[in-house]
Amino acid sequence: MTDRIPRIAFQGERGAFSEEAAVKLLGEDIELVPRATFDALYSSISEGLADFIIAPIENTLAGSVHRSYDLLLECGLQIKREIVRPIAHYLMGIPGSSLESITLVESHPIALAQCERFFAEHPWIRRVATEDTAGSVRDIMQAGDPTQGAIAGRRAAQVYRATVLLDNLQDHYDNFTRFLLLSTDATIPEGADKLSIVVRLAHKPGTLHDALGVFAWRDLNLLKIESRPIPGCPFQYRFYLDIHASVVDPRTIGALAEIRNFADEVTILGCYPQAPPLEAEVRSKSKEAGANQ
Amino acid sequence: MTDRIPRIAFQGERGAFSEEAAVKLLGEDIELVPRATFDALYSSISEGLADFIIAPIENTLAGSVHRSYDLLLECGLQIKREIVRPIAHYLMGIPGSSLESITLVESHPIALAQCERFFAEHPWIRRVATEDTAGSVRDIMQAGDPTQGAIAGRRAAQVYRATVLLDNLQDHYDNFTRFLLLSTDATIPEGADKLSIVVRLAHKPGTLHDALGVFAWRDLNLLKIESRPIPGCPFQYRFYLDIHASVVDPRTIGALAEIRNFADEVTILGCYPQAPPLEAEVRSKSKEAGANQ
Repeated sequence: MTDRIPRIAFQGERGAFSEEAAVKLLGEDIELVPRATFDALYSSISEGLADFIIAPIENTLAGSVHRSYDLLLECGLQIKREIVRPIAHYLMGIPGSSLESITLVESHPIALAQCERFFAEHPWIRRVATEDTAGSVRDIMQAGDPTQGAIAGRRAAQVYRATVLLDNLQDHYDNFTRFLLLSTDATIPEGADKLSIVVRLAHKPGTLHDALGVFAWRDLNLLKIESRPIPGCPFQYRFYLDIHASVVDPRTIGALAEIRNFADEVTILGCYPQAPPLEAEVRSKSKEAGANQ
Repeated sequence: MTDRIPRIAFQGERGAFSEEAAVKLLGEDIELVPRATFDALYSSISEGLADFIIAPIENTLAGSVHRSYDLLLECGLQIKREIVRPIAHYLMGIPGSSLESITLVESHPIALAQCERFFAEHPWIRRVATEDTAGSVRDIMQAGDPTQGAIAGRRAAQVYRATVLLDNLQDHYDNFTRFLLLSTDATIPEGADKLSIVVRLAHKPGTLHDALGVFAWRDLNLLKIESRPIPGCPFQYRFYLDIHASVVDPRTIGALAEIRNFADEVTILGCYPQAPPLEAEVRSKSKEAGANQ
């Protein structure tokens, strides 16, 4: 495996937002392995199809990706990196088309709904729902019709050689997705300062407060808490905790030892470098885009 | 409004699981107002179309209903009651049809996916995805074809006068949905012992632990915590807390006064009687159904 270029699996079709995130993290010198579903994605490494997987875990408008949270615990992989990417929508057409020639625009229903302002300003353009943003770009390129457009991320234009007719169509500029890079490698990456764990607490009053206390008392900051139902135990929950903590810090070692007093299960999902909440590049792009409107 | 029968809005088509929950809570002497989307549902009272709304808030397999959580805060209504209902799937056909005559079964993709065992045991039956469970029953009744079946909750058979061919098709018996009944009425219902609030905490370390402490120190048990992203503030969250507490208990009054020290915003969603986690009826039905397999 040492000299081979790394294979990275992602959910969706070539040109998806996840592919964009993978390239941003690992560069262009990777082998991209598109997977149809989240279940297929999370089993890519155990099936020998990939060395890494990249998965969306939360979006700033829609919230946590439930299926990703559940599979994160089941898959037994370790989080190696995280990255936050802006979700920016582009209108694309075939080479030679123009905004004036477009009368129909295809995309995933969520992407269409995030570009309401564009459709309000162009009422003659008919919107057509499809299963995938990047797949819509592939489809209009195959059709070769200058009246057809598609909405997707910029990467899809590159992959399918479509022409970008308009950028930043999205109504909201605070639309970011956080992605996790996972592998079987259990070594702690350099600069690791964020710890993700899952706890199943003893089913008695006050245990969540007690469990959070082991971090709070040590000044280890809780960054996120997410609850997910426990299958077979109606109205009981597992808690996913993201903590600003390095596993080589003695406070973290103490906290992880102490939390076992309140928890029936503690699973470490990984310790990895925390992504800056919003990258400088993202901020400046958002501003530019905002000024264009 | 005093002598009129109450109008209750729900999301979905006539015969939906939400309708079943509404009838279970308020009886048959109500006017049912079906609404196409969650957004339409939550604005039913302000638009003068209903006196109550009923909304699913969490499912024991799928987890919290994000859109319901967001609209719960926005709508300004108060929670009056909650109810937990089993999600049991029934195979229905037109009168005169039988399990043997069925070659095609329609339903919502999630319902189809929850009945994998049935389809594995009946491999000659083709499955067809539709937009709505109850709507599928309406459609097969209109088609009048004895080879067509539909999967939905029992209520849909009553509403559309379909024949139940098989009961409890679902693979898992721990499939329950919790529903909330909401209105503009701010009086506290009798027996209210569950308090639902939303807090936006000051953005500094340890505040969630401090906020939960105001309840834990008073022996007021936290039943559920749910985090949702704050629009416009990427990677900051609001917390929805369900607490076993009555607003007339001095400990609750103390806790609500103290939590304001850690929170920028505290919104009371309601104080109402806690539903038994699983009703006796539900348990016995689950057992029966399990024994049938």
